[in-house]
Amino acid sequence: MVFEMPEYRPPDFESVTLAGAPDARLVRVTADGVAPEGFHATTIFPEYVKVGGRWLLAAASRMDSVITVEDGALRVREFRNLRTGDMVVVGRAEDGSQGVLVHPFGFSRGGEREEAFAFRTGRTRETSYSMDYDRLYELLEYEREHGYIVWVAGPAVVFDYDSRNSMVGLIEQGYAHALLAGNALATHDLEAALFRTGLGQDIYTQRSSENGHYNHLDTLNRARALGSSEALVRSGEVRDGVVEACLRCGVPMVVAGSIRDDGPLPETVGDVYAAQDAMRAHTGKATTLICLATQLHAIAAGNMTPCYQVTGDTVRPVFIYVIDVSEFAVNKLRDRGTLEVISIVTNAQDFLVHLGRRLLREGPA
Amino acid sequence: MVFEMPEYRPPDFESVTLAGAPDARLVRVTADGVAPEGFHATTIFPEYVKVGGRWLLAAASRMDSVITVEDGALRVREFRNLRTGDMVVVGRAEDGSQGVLVHPFGFSRGGEREEAFAFRTGRTRETSYSMDYDRLYELLEYEREHGYIVWVAGPAVVFDYDSRNSMVGLIEQGYAHALLAGNALATHDLEAALFRTGLGQDIYTQRSSENGHYNHLDTLNRARALGSSEALVRSGEVRDGVVEACLRCGVPMVVAGSIRDDGPLPETVGDVYAAQDAMRAHTGKATTLICLATQLHAIAAGNMTPCYQVTGDTVRPVFIYVIDVSEFAVNKLRDRGTLEVISIVTNAQDFLVHLGRRLLREGPA
Amino acid sequence: MVFEMPEYRPPDFESVTLAGAPDARLVRVTADGVAPEGFHATTIFPEYVKVGGRWLLAAASRMDSVITVEDGALRVREFRNLRTGDMVVVGRAEDGSQGVLVHPFGFSRGGEREEAFAFRTGRTRETSYSMDYDRLYELLEYEREHGYIVWVAGPAVVFDYDSRNSMVGLIEQGYAHALLAGNALATHDLEAALFRTGLGQDIYTQRSSENGHYNHLDTLNRARALGSSEALVRSGEVRDGVVEACLRCGVPMVVAGSIRDDGPLPETVGDVYAAQDAMRAHTGKATTLICLATQLHAIAAGNMTPCYQVTGDTVRPVFIYVIDVSEFAVNKLRDRGTLEVISIVTNAQDFLVHLGRRLLREGPA
Amino acid sequence: MVFEMPEYRPPDFESVTLAGAPDARLVRVTADGVAPEGFHATTIFPEYVKVGGRWLLAAASRMDSVITVEDGALRVREFRNLRTGDMVVVGRAEDGSQGVLVHPFGFSRGGEREEAFAFRTGRTRETSYSMDYDRLYELLEYEREHGYIVWVAGPAVVFDYDSRNSMVGLIEQGYAHALLAGNALATHDLEAALFRTGLGQDIYTQRSSENGHYNHLDTLNRARALGSSEALVRSGEVRDGVVEACLRCGVPMVVAGSIRDDGPLPETVGDVYAAQDAMRAHTGKATTLICLATQLHAIAAGNMTPCYQVTGDTVRPVFIYVIDVSEFAVNKLRDRGTLEVISIVTNAQDFLVHLGRRLLREGPA
Repeated sequence: MVFEMPEYRPPDFESVTLAGAPDARLVRVTADGVAPEGFHATTIFPEYVKVGGRWLLAAASRMDSVITVEDGALRVREFRNLRTGDMVVVGRAEDGSQGVLVHPFGFSRGGEREEAFAFRTGRTRETSYSMDYDRLYELLEYEREHGYIVWVAGPAVVFDYDSRNSMVGLIEQGYAHALLAGNALATHDLEAALFRTGLGQDIYTQRSSENGHYNHLDTLNRARALGSSEALVRSGEVRDGVVEACLRCGVPMVVAGSIRDDGPLPETVGDVYAAQDAMRAHTGKATTLICLATQLHAIAAGNMTPCYQVTGDTVRPVFIYVIDVSEFAVNKLRDRGTLEVISIVTNAQDFLVHLGRRLLREGPA
Repeated sequence: MVFEMPEYRPPDFESVTLAGAPDARLVRVTADGVAPEGFHATTIFPEYVKVGGRWLLAAASRMDSVITVEDGALRVREFRNLRTGDMVVVGRAEDGSQGVLVHPFGFSRGGEREEAFAFRTGRTRETSYSMDYDRLYELLEYEREHGYIVWVAGPAVVFDYDSRNSMVGLIEQGYAHALLAGNALATHDLEAALFRTGLGQDIYTQRSSENGHYNHLDTLNRARALGSSEALVRSGEVRDGVVEACLRCGVPMVVAGSIRDDGPLPETVGDVYAAQDAMRAHTGKATTLICLATQLHAIAAGNMTPCYQVTGDTVRPVFIYVIDVSEFAVNKLRDRGTLEVISIVTNAQDFLVHLGRRLLREGPA
Repeated sequence: MVFEMPEYRPPDFESVTLAGAPDARLVRVTADGVAPEGFHATTIFPEYVKVGGRWLLAAASRMDSVITVEDGALRVREFRNLRTGDMVVVGRAEDGSQGVLVHPFGFSRGGEREEAFAFRTGRTRETSYSMDYDRLYELLEYEREHGYIVWVAGPAVVFDYDSRNSMVGLIEQGYAHALLAGNALATHDLEAALFRTGLGQDIYTQRSSENGHYNHLDTLNRARALGSSEALVRSGEVRDGVVEACLRCGVPMVVAGSIRDDGPLPETVGDVYAAQDAMRAHTGKATTLICLATQLHAIAAGNMTPCYQVTGDTVRPVFIYVIDVSEFAVNKLRDRGTLEVISIVTNAQDFLVHLGRRLLREGPA
Repeated sequence: MVFEMPEYRPPDFESVTLAGAPDARLVRVTADGVAPEGFHATTIFPEYVKVGGRWLLAAASRMDSVITVEDGALRVREFRNLRTGDMVVVGRAEDGSQGVLVHPFGFSRGGEREEAFAFRTGRTRETSYSMDYDRLYELLEYEREHGYIVWVAGPAVVFDYDSRNSMVGLIEQGYAHALLAGNALATHDLEAALFRTGLGQDIYTQRSSENGHYNHLDTLNRARALGSSEALVRSGEVRDGVVEACLRCGVPMVVAGSIRDDGPLPETVGDVYAAQDAMRAHTGKATTLICLATQLHAIAAGNMTPCYQVTGDTVRPVFIYVIDVSEFAVNKLRDRGTLEVISIVTNAQDFLVHLGRRLLREGPA
């Protein structure tokens, strides 16, 4: 048993500074999408705002956004989502003196705080990850019942036979509550179902099929003809893979578009800000976020995910894992200062196969 | 003098196979955005289609799209841009036998063809790049007068003082005809103009300003308040940098959105397929494409850029450069098989400073 | 069953060219360590030399060395190991016309030859490795009985608890016939046995011990005081780990020195050319070579390992695996042109844990 | 003017703790190469030992070694260089209380200390290096007259025409006082002089010569026949390059052997511990150390180089630069905690060309 849920210690609101602090200043938005000068920008940490003499905690927070007060409650909004008339929290002191309190060290770590900082000097290919894996196995078993596990994945996940099967198994057995991905993952997963290839290469034997680049184009065109990936699955042509498993198991999948897309699939969200909103609907509920082999989506999702989650009266940490073969990629997200980002420098396929072998009752077919 | 423009040798249309080939089969599109079965997908190479007994060459081509015949001329369209009624070229033989001819080896290379293949085994940090630099200097001087140079750049370009100045100088002195970038480059460039920081860190001294993460948010909010980056420049607050130089020199800049954007800037194109169209308006004219430190945009632009350009009766090659510190990134684009992708494994900032020192009359201030 | 032993097809010695070829020219060495002008340098492929009218095959070959004829048999010697009076094969034609024949395509691959070349374009973090793993599991079970498995490992292997245990299990259960490593692996493995740390960091919890940098220095000093790692093991202080397992199971370990060594351990071979000779005593017998997370040792061992092994009348291929998290590192060895180098881009620790879970009867403690 | 020499502030020896501290305990070595239990191991920082009531400063220090007292002076020795009878400093407290004082923060940094720590979170491909370059230009001009500049270089430096020429120019014009390298750099530099190739590939045009792998073997064999690289240069066959420039300008070059060497060249030091001693003869005097594209040699030299240099009564910092295209490589040396390691993530060839263009009076031929 190496996993233990850290406890949350709220700030001491009875302290002289906090008890005597003024209400936060609120300023009205006068043009859609534009914040008032001096706006307070959110971090990933728990943030409290004093409203009407009471310290309120922002739920479903995210980084680099602003806080509005709506019907007496706090709401964290992106700049682009501000509307004229919104009342925005203003003030850049973070110590409560202006009615805004950022509380970065709320989670107990059994005296590990200093150390945690010590090993933030970077994780590399030479770091020991044994305990991280053991902890993650236990965490995922816990989260399956009590949490909300959001996966963020790049196409490499479906380019490999075993890794794709592991991902499918994890979806089927309840270890995924949402999947955030791009058009490439969805396309090549469907291609694998139709042709057993990824970009024209057999996902098991690595053999290239002749004219193999047509495989993903035919896949896209077929889905476009039918109107959706779901229709393609219902048509019976697609019988395995990540998209099929998500549809069958009711796991929501957000497919975001990018400028390098072919196709795209009909359900791909071409407007990236609409895609952000759709992603945040899940990261805002996430208790564990696992990012696999995708720098773009990992940073996007990481920026939308706070380090804590509020459920009723309980505040608990959000665990963020970033798995990538490049130190640069994994450290990019760590650099934002989250204690709870655990990065593992490895091939995401091997990572998934590990998880599958340990967690799945009966391995994927 | 190490640069020489390769000559184009068209196919031998008098050969038995080509002379006797049938017209390509055209099939009508019956639903928007869906190609007929058996569509022919384009490559990056010169492609000829036989229409009415004549071999036509596709201009402004791109990869993984389809060819329509419109008013007797060829047009290369993305799937999503097909409209009901369009007549699409069908057939997957590439040797002309079905009226479609892909012509990959049209450009003379002084007997270098085999060798070119030999050294495609990969370019690394240990490759000799001296001649590539020398050739590029000469190429850019030529293209400044006769070509269309499209830059594709990631934010690293503006995170460094010297490199940002080089880029500005290249724009000012005619070495850039268009710039394709993302919201991050534009935002941090404006941040540098307003605060001399990139993500809060001084772009010369590396010193972090207190509350420095507010710098880019204040920049974004200011531009949003004024309605555009252009307005911010006209306001007089922004006096240097890449965005300012593009506006001042009339160099068009496409700013594409992504799911990791803050803000965004008002001019950022949030719909990625609209962004693709805007980008292709430039890559379709490109004679040289230079991609700096951005895997996403490099692959996107690379896929939209053919290896040849048609002007009147002349066919000339398009030169594509990819500069990135990671072998994985540069080889990703090379793998598509273009002879003319020259990749350089280095820091894009050093690359730009080299170019600035050699090409600019009087270095940037 | 995905592993099949390729068959060897010898050259057609009855062909006109080969039957009519002259004996190879032999020239006498006149100074120790200096080859005669025009020497023939070896490749990794099977090479035949005509001596006394008969084509002889070089056994225990290696790259970039010369062939001597000693007592009527061929011997492949490094330049530095030439002695005055040695008779060296001279001639640079490789087609047999001068009595030397290089035979690169002797191993059947069921029509896969072209394809093999096709996918040499590089293996990356996005390649599918499922079949490679399956084949390797079967190969290792075969080699355990019939082959000679040589491991080449960097220190990362012992920096992680699970990976170190897997390596130990593989040694115990007969999957390793020799281990080639450096002073760092041996030192940190003993450190882990004495202190459960690697460079002062707990190999399971990642916790840094106070004054932890003393751990490896105390380890080295203790081994030096006792005279050898073996004495340290016999003293009872070291009870687990790779060094202990090798000693207990009689698996020879070559520990080569390098300029970055502390200590060194008493058995570390400080003269790198003596170390080469000691390594080649094993690579010359290797039927499978597995290189883990060490660029220096992987290239060194790779250069000393031919792509074939001769036992009696049988010629069989040597399988070389290179596992590293960096594309640059794995491709460096592939570039030498060996068909049989299979590279896997991943963290070597995950790789070892995979192998352990699949191959070991009863997991390591 | 961005470079300024930091001043050294010695410890306050009048403080109660230090004034009242006992002499350090010295214990006699009883077996060659073995330190007494409880030995004090050196760091890279200034270290003082109290002997006969006086605090002595260790000169020419290095990491992970021990301190002996010889004729009343301190000497820093590697374990392997201890001899029976040597008196070794014992004690692991670093605060002076046992007569040993480690003084890590002696160099003024104009209030920059905290910040320095702040940006140790890692330097990447996206860091701004403009000021680092400017400072380095000024530093090298200063050191040329007043310091001792030691270069540590991997073979990539001579694989490129421009970069090799820059290195030659820097040697000729006094910017190099010693060069530490391996057999590969020296061999391929001589190969370039004889054949204009590096590993058979033209160092300017990248063209591969037929049978090009013979080039370095012929080079090695020729040098071995003549007895030394120097003899090869004197023979007139070698007229340019790094080796020739070092010989002509009297810049000492240490060529260390490794297990992957072919040849080797006659002057290559095959015993790595003898090579360490030869290298340390230079790093012990170094005031600036520049490591280019070689992880092995950079770490080796870095470990042998203290962060300070003592000349007469003056103590000054040693500046260490590490240039490599991989974040992993540059951060590996930074992790040891030296404030003065400046790492630049770029291609070492571009780095050298920058230096050449700025520092050399008249560019290399």
